[in-house]
Amino acid sequence: MPQVGLIMGSASDWPVLKKAAETLDALKISYEVKVVSAHRTPDRAFAYARGAEGRGLKLIIAAAGGAAHLAGVMAGLTHLPVLGVPMESKALKGMDSLLSTVQMPGGIPVATFAIGEAGAKNAALFAAAMLALSDAELNQRLKDWRQKQTDSVPESPEG
Amino acid sequence: MPQVGLIMGSASDWPVLKKAAETLDALKISYEVKVVSAHRTPDRAFAYARGAEGRGLKLIIAAAGGAAHLAGVMAGLTHLPVLGVPMESKALKGMDSLLSTVQMPGGIPVATFAIGEAGAKNAALFAAAMLALSDAELNQRLKDWRQKQTDSVPESPEG
Amino acid sequence: MPQVGLIMGSASDWPVLKKAAETLDALKISYEVKVVSAHRTPDRAFAYARGAEGRGLKLIIAAAGGAAHLAGVMAGLTHLPVLGVPMESKALKGMDSLLSTVQMPGGIPVATFAIGEAGAKNAALFAAAMLALSDAELNQRLKDWRQKQTDSVPESPEG
Amino acid sequence: MPQVGLIMGSASDWPVLKKAAETLDALKISYEVKVVSAHRTPDRAFAYARGAEGRGLKLIIAAAGGAAHLAGVMAGLTHLPVLGVPMESKALKGMDSLLSTVQMPGGIPVATFAIGEAGAKNAALFAAAMLALSDAELNQRLKDWRQKQTDSVPESPEG
Amino acid sequence: MPQVGLIMGSASDWPVLKKAAETLDALKISYEVKVVSAHRTPDRAFAYARGAEGRGLKLIIAAAGGAAHLAGVMAGLTHLPVLGVPMESKALKGMDSLLSTVQMPGGIPVATFAIGEAGAKNAALFAAAMLALSDAELNQRLKDWRQKQTDSVPESPEG
Amino acid sequence: MPQVGLIMGSASDWPVLKKAAETLDALKISYEVKVVSAHRTPDRAFAYARGAEGRGLKLIIAAAGGAAHLAGVMAGLTHLPVLGVPMESKALKGMDSLLSTVQMPGGIPVATFAIGEAGAKNAALFAAAMLALSDAELNQRLKDWRQKQTDSVPESPEG
Amino acid sequence: MPQVGLIMGSASDWPVLKKAAETLDALKISYEVKVVSAHRTPDRAFAYARGAEGRGLKLIIAAAGGAAHLAGVMAGLTHLPVLGVPMESKALKGMDSLLSTVQMPGGIPVATFAIGEAGAKNAALFAAAMLALSDAELNQRLKDWRQKQTDSVPESPEG
Amino acid sequence: MPQVGLIMGSASDWPVLKKAAETLDALKISYEVKVVSAHRTPDRAFAYARGAEGRGLKLIIAAAGGAAHLAGVMAGLTHLPVLGVPMESKALKGMDSLLSTVQMPGGIPVATFAIGEAGAKNAALFAAAMLALSDAELNQRLKDWRQKQTDSVPESPEG
Repeated sequence: MPQVGLIMGSASDWPVLKKAAETLDALKISYEVKVVSAHRTPDRAFAYARGAEGRGLKLIIAAAGGAAHLAGVMAGLTHLPVLGVPMESKALKGMDSLLSTVQMPGGIPVATFAIGEAGAKNAALFAAAMLALSDAELNQRLKDWRQKQTDSVPESPEG
Repeated sequence: MPQVGLIMGSASDWPVLKKAAETLDALKISYEVKVVSAHRTPDRAFAYARGAEGRGLKLIIAAAGGAAHLAGVMAGLTHLPVLGVPMESKALKGMDSLLSTVQMPGGIPVATFAIGEAGAKNAALFAAAMLALSDAELNQRLKDWRQKQTDSVPESPEG
Repeated sequence: MPQVGLIMGSASDWPVLKKAAETLDALKISYEVKVVSAHRTPDRAFAYARGAEGRGLKLIIAAAGGAAHLAGVMAGLTHLPVLGVPMESKALKGMDSLLSTVQMPGGIPVATFAIGEAGAKNAALFAAAMLALSDAELNQRLKDWRQKQTDSVPESPEG
Repeated sequence: MPQVGLIMGSASDWPVLKKAAETLDALKISYEVKVVSAHRTPDRAFAYARGAEGRGLKLIIAAAGGAAHLAGVMAGLTHLPVLGVPMESKALKGMDSLLSTVQMPGGIPVATFAIGEAGAKNAALFAAAMLALSDAELNQRLKDWRQKQTDSVPESPEG
Repeated sequence: MPQVGLIMGSASDWPVLKKAAETLDALKISYEVKVVSAHRTPDRAFAYARGAEGRGLKLIIAAAGGAAHLAGVMAGLTHLPVLGVPMESKALKGMDSLLSTVQMPGGIPVATFAIGEAGAKNAALFAAAMLALSDAELNQRLKDWRQKQTDSVPESPEG
Repeated sequence: MPQVGLIMGSASDWPVLKKAAETLDALKISYEVKVVSAHRTPDRAFAYARGAEGRGLKLIIAAAGGAAHLAGVMAGLTHLPVLGVPMESKALKGMDSLLSTVQMPGGIPVATFAIGEAGAKNAALFAAAMLALSDAELNQRLKDWRQKQTDSVPESPEG
Repeated sequence: MPQVGLIMGSASDWPVLKKAAETLDALKISYEVKVVSAHRTPDRAFAYARGAEGRGLKLIIAAAGGAAHLAGVMAGLTHLPVLGVPMESKALKGMDSLLSTVQMPGGIPVATFAIGEAGAKNAALFAAAMLALSDAELNQRLKDWRQKQTDSVPESPEG
Repeated sequence: MPQVGLIMGSASDWPVLKKAAETLDALKISYEVKVVSAHRTPDRAFAYARGAEGRGLKLIIAAAGGAAHLAGVMAGLTHLPVLGVPMESKALKGMDSLLSTVQMPGGIPVATFAIGEAGAKNAALFAAAMLALSDAELNQRLKDWRQKQTDSVPESPEG
């Protein structure tokens, strides 16, 4: 059973959200990938969130753009941690997605990350940090990943 | 049976949404008032939207602030017309509420009105205009209301 | 006689507003298409709005960009429902169009939709929802359209 | 016959627009003051703009807030110079008023000034500068006014 | 002697400001074109503004981008009408240019137009409207131009 | 040893961050409270982050305003989960705090919550959800808290 | 002869800019205080900037709000370092002041600090850091001031 | 030993920051170039800032984008002058970078310049102005550079 549910409001979000999948892969964290729209497939969204704990998911990463309600709707339906990734939108460049995701009312939290690819990658890294709290091997893998990232920063911009 | 469902994400939205109720009263349109939170009471939200057509509601006016998902969630759950009123929020003054309400993806419409009291009043007036399409008496009441509004604008700012 | 007046401030808005036309076509709703500029053709705008009810139009969808006054001017001249579609503008990406359309003063409502193509499509869907209130066949077509949309969302982003 | 038409979308704009009137008074420029709403009194707006040149007005100063269409509507109806003053609005602090006034499409100009009192005062000063082009006495009064303003700036902030 | 001074902060603004020149040409209004930077050539700016009235200029159109100070600096140095055209800037798309131009303090007016080409064209049209106040032939040319513009708006978007 | 480190950039953030403490209290989660400024006490910040895992902290909640670097600096110094709460700032109302916290580059995640009190409360709730993944009793307390919250939403705004 | 010129566009900026004066006092840096408006007193501004180096000033701190041109105008007139402090403005809360100050074109630098009091204080601290490069005693005073600031940060928000 | 430390959060910032290097070259100011990430290489950042004064650096120019913490972190770790250059970011076009850099709390100054290349160039020019305060030859070179810049502005946009 996967630990992470990676969902997106539209299949067109996948090229960006794939960064989360690649990062989970690198850290050997199991996940599943689904298209779940809060607006176009509300029953699927309802069922997904309500079934998540029972199916053994530990957390949900939800990506959406524009009036990005997916993460918030998930967070209203489950007490599992929900991580939101605002997609860059066409006209407003993700400012709408960001505010729709992060400005949740007190009582229903969505952990929000940066707009676009950086956010997708960071949601996965944050998921790893969470899961590492009770998984010593993952904790070590994450520390190694972080060290490797640090080591890969060149001293000079021209390499 | 009321024609209009007037719902809000939090009871604290009522002083603003009351402007919608007063306007519906003035135009003799029946309505009901409920607190329905997409986040804190998702089952209530689900049931409200799914039951709306069957119960005879003609349209839903939904007010919410911040990451304002209520109108969008309603619109995903019913094909009845959903009118969104963005509340003025504390930090971002309703810009978050506005973008969360209006920037819906293609396929699931929310008719959005101005931030705050003007939006609440206008959602009610728009509801009247919609219902007047098949209600000649309401159509006349609405025209009278509009005429009265026009007549009440003074020529001079000092009355 | 068409039920919907589809108007735009400039012929250059047509590639975007065409999404509204296509959606009305799909739902078999009759409409007419006109260029009506509140600024460059104010008499045409005046005549269009004032003649709309008499000619049998049920509602007006108005698209404009920048200082987008078309929908608001229409709404001041008729009590018919006016739906506004903010166009994406060159410099400010439609934020100017959105605020000019949605922030109407209390008393004169414009139902506003998302910036650009999503808004054009959604204005048409909302028009359908309004007209469906007194047209059982359209109501069924709209429900079918919505169901088809739901069914077309793939489970996986890679289809 | 007054030279300047000072109009506002709502009587509630008067405390701000009064700064324009006071400045016109100081420069001995004749003006009239009217409430003219593009939305609530469209016929009055139409008649005002269309009659302006014939009645001998030289220019129009129009103040409005929110989706501030008044100046743009005037500018579409007359070729006389139209000066727009964006009012500070409740939620968005005049950003909506500013963009609705200034972002006019090519072809229909509105000369826009700052949000609120500074804009009201400056619209009047700009009107004076325009009229002074063909009125040598006003030109001298304006230069004197400007000189007096310069002289009144203290060297030190504590007087 | 030209009536209009058309100045820009950088030669790179010319492709946009050229729209003003073309519009002045169409209305047979004389003008001169200069590069005058408030920042890089402050003496030139000082001399230009201070000499403008004496040289017979009637008004100045100033275009600049980013921290766009040119129009405001001109307006501080002459009581002639100054029209500001905010250029679209690279990062912030002209929002910086617009606010730097329009938000002048009370006492020193800059008539501001839309960001980019529309603003350049409209500044020229506004200049025409100003000059037409005391030039009956220009007044007629401007009315003709406006009528021609109105006549050129097609009824249908597809021509 | 506390599980949660609750830190803030300035003691003046405490009235807002206290909402996080109250929520942790309600869920019986142990925490410590410190003032740690990334700017004014960088050594303290360095030591706090680097010592966090060794001291047994499970996660850090960091609140800061304006150029809010605290959460990001923490996240660079530890792989433990860091939750950021943007404070409402005086001039820009927290938009600066939000962007400084959420727009982290790929590789160093900060889970960001809403501006101000709602964000403080939600960071605590999210911390609970994380810790509940390996603490069945806390999981039950959290579910109870959520249920109680749901139950406390009145049907009607007037109670 | 003072080392620092502390200037402001309006005497009303003094309550905020006073924070700069107090900080310079604390670090024993000599300064003078003047009201210099780029718009209302352009000759004074011209003379001030052009005379600054000759009079022995080492740098200029310029505060202004709205279309805040003062710092940029100074920077165009002298090659001495110019530090800009954007004032919080009424409607737009200093966003206009910030962009008008910071978005200078390449070639004419203005070192910009935060909106309002924090910026005023920081401009003074930065001036100290600059002057300390060739003044060992001031360097020590600045280090002491910084150390004292660090020491004054309490461990706990409740002192 | 170089006088200026030119650092950037990511090697990908180099094409923009290179404008600072070129300007320093033109003014014969010595500098070093490093990649120093506040987030990915915090120890390097810590060591760099803490060692700067001892190694003889006079000032640091720090460029970063998004949640741009590099300049602020440097400024917390050294009392040397720190100049911040906000990079243009992908989604928000540098507005995030700008606010993260400029809105520093009172007590820790970062001198901030424009977003992108203009800011990079201006940070270098400002560094020159600072260093010129105690280097008469550099002062002359800077004045010459500025004069040459002034002389290079053409009178006409078409050369």
